[in-house]
Amino acid sequence: MIERALLKAHSVLYTTSPNPRVGCILTTPDGMLLGQGHTQRAGAPHAEIMALRDAAAQGHSVKGATAYVTLEPCSHHGRTGPCCDALIAAGIKRVVASIADPNPLVAGQGFERLRAAGIEVEVGTGAAESRELNIGFFSRMIRKTPWVRMKMAASLDGTTALANGQSQWITSAEARADGHAWRARACAVLTGIGTVLQDNPRLDVRLVSTPRQPHLVVVDSRLETPLDAHLFMAGRTLYIYAAVQNEAKKEALEAQGATVIYLPDANGKVDLAAMIQDLGRREINELHVEAGSKLNGSLIRAGLVDEFLLYLAPKLLGPGLGMASFGPLQALSDAVELQFQSTDRVGADLRIVARVAGRDRF
Amino acid sequence: MIERALLKAHSVLYTTSPNPRVGCILTTPDGMLLGQGHTQRAGAPHAEIMALRDAAAQGHSVKGATAYVTLEPCSHHGRTGPCCDALIAAGIKRVVASIADPNPLVAGQGFERLRAAGIEVEVGTGAAESRELNIGFFSRMIRKTPWVRMKMAASLDGTTALANGQSQWITSAEARADGHAWRARACAVLTGIGTVLQDNPRLDVRLVSTPRQPHLVVVDSRLETPLDAHLFMAGRTLYIYAAVQNEAKKEALEAQGATVIYLPDANGKVDLAAMIQDLGRREINELHVEAGSKLNGSLIRAGLVDEFLLYLAPKLLGPGLGMASFGPLQALSDAVELQFQSTDRVGADLRIVARVAGRDRF
Repeated sequence: MIERALLKAHSVLYTTSPNPRVGCILTTPDGMLLGQGHTQRAGAPHAEIMALRDAAAQGHSVKGATAYVTLEPCSHHGRTGPCCDALIAAGIKRVVASIADPNPLVAGQGFERLRAAGIEVEVGTGAAESRELNIGFFSRMIRKTPWVRMKMAASLDGTTALANGQSQWITSAEARADGHAWRARACAVLTGIGTVLQDNPRLDVRLVSTPRQPHLVVVDSRLETPLDAHLFMAGRTLYIYAAVQNEAKKEALEAQGATVIYLPDANGKVDLAAMIQDLGRREINELHVEAGSKLNGSLIRAGLVDEFLLYLAPKLLGPGLGMASFGPLQALSDAVELQFQSTDRVGADLRIVARVAGRDRF
Repeated sequence: MIERALLKAHSVLYTTSPNPRVGCILTTPDGMLLGQGHTQRAGAPHAEIMALRDAAAQGHSVKGATAYVTLEPCSHHGRTGPCCDALIAAGIKRVVASIADPNPLVAGQGFERLRAAGIEVEVGTGAAESRELNIGFFSRMIRKTPWVRMKMAASLDGTTALANGQSQWITSAEARADGHAWRARACAVLTGIGTVLQDNPRLDVRLVSTPRQPHLVVVDSRLETPLDAHLFMAGRTLYIYAAVQNEAKKEALEAQGATVIYLPDANGKVDLAAMIQDLGRREINELHVEAGSKLNGSLIRAGLVDEFLLYLAPKLLGPGLGMASFGPLQALSDAVELQFQSTDRVGADLRIVARVAGRDRF
């Protein structure tokens, strides 16, 4: 049944930000389905409440029932009331939970409260999958920073743009749509002013269907974002991180709906590590980076990237602009060591998800 | 049964050069195994003869039997007598063959001779697999040139060596052993003088077991191969293609066992297209290229590469030396378009086999 609850959790990959993706299944002790639910958008009920409501709507009593839930039921009054109390009040007898909630406001207290109410609690089934599904939430709760995933697209020989600058449509339509699905699951998309000025992108989710657009983050040291840039979209949260004060431009950008944040480092650039910390405070779980070679290189050099989402097109372009400018390294042992998470064909292209070795151990 | 014959053919991947890899299974009309065989080393018996001998050794009569064979039985007196005659003489009643032999000396005449002798002949089962297994042989017979497979190893961002030249051991031990298996199946390994001078490699097969070492081909325009280079190995055929005449060095190299061939182009370099033609005449089916960025680039630019064997290590090295120097391209549409044949993990690395689009249609 926990597999079914995980499926429910997966079904809300695009919507629950900044909450975790959680699924809940209620059954009779002998396994008859009574109700099911998943986390709603932030501020709306959690998975357990939805499952209880679903059972009630079908006229099922849940007295003595078992609840399968992919994350520890909450014990605190956050945006919604505590799920523990609702499960107890409903007469649930047994809770099978995948993993403890890393939120310090919960962190085992949910299980304690359930046990104190006489409910049998089992923890661990589906733990790895639930954590993986919510790696950004776990990252933010434990490390206080988002899970940073960098998307790159290149030819098989690692070229992202020709020497003359040509770079559009290296990968296939299927790969571009797949890239939008990864944007859709992120709390925020991050890019740099170079990309804004060169490509004037929207960086929203268009090629897959989603009820929620991720926030947008722009690294723009000197506040050069044009006021008529395509990235301004009604209702979308837009953070612009800057280093050089320019109050007039800041006001103009904020009049367009942006929030400008000054975070200079000693060299007059945006302090990228401080920015990532700040994005954690702003409840960004998964940060999806789509930037140019320069900002990619700076983020890698600063050790801020957790994972790479790489699309390789089946073509050779010869020497040109690469994926990420960092280095030059002095020794091969200075390489950024990764581990493949998955390698799949997407349309004509190859999609590689590779994680910086050890970065997911937190 | 043809699957079993194909397995026999696969089992001699490293040994039959320059002959094709062929398997033969003899059965009773109702499918009882009578004998099996595969192509021996060049000059020794073909698969059909070996299968007939195997049946005889077990005391089985093959009168009225069916022969499953992965390539048309030969009708000509090459290094061995015609297999057709042997099958007819043995009283075989039915032949199931995967594909016609592209050798113009056979090319359907084998089937004709069998049919003329009253044998029932069926052709086509396993055709694609048999051709694929022998793509180099088909290439040489039809195009008169080898199937050119270029091996490259790089980091995920396409870097093969750091700016300071460091390049050893980018990929894992498993990937290096796998690379030797691909060398082992080739008729010849090709490299350039740059690699010889920089790495002094042996370029033989060591990490997998093989009874046959592929020939070695060196592109060495000015005959700079050192007389004490590691690549000189007793018994190995070594072709050195040069452009600038130097009779003294030629004699010295030939005294070491090399064959020096002058094939200059208009620029005083080796005429690579003429070299590939010459290697076809020298019975090279599969040519395995392991060269540096420069020669790789020249071969690609000249349109001489059919397939890429690419190992990508899960690491980022940043900008450095790339896989192949060609271009700079002026438009993305000038890219060398490939098709993925396979993408597999080998040890910690990713192995990609990609074919130049359309190059296998001959």
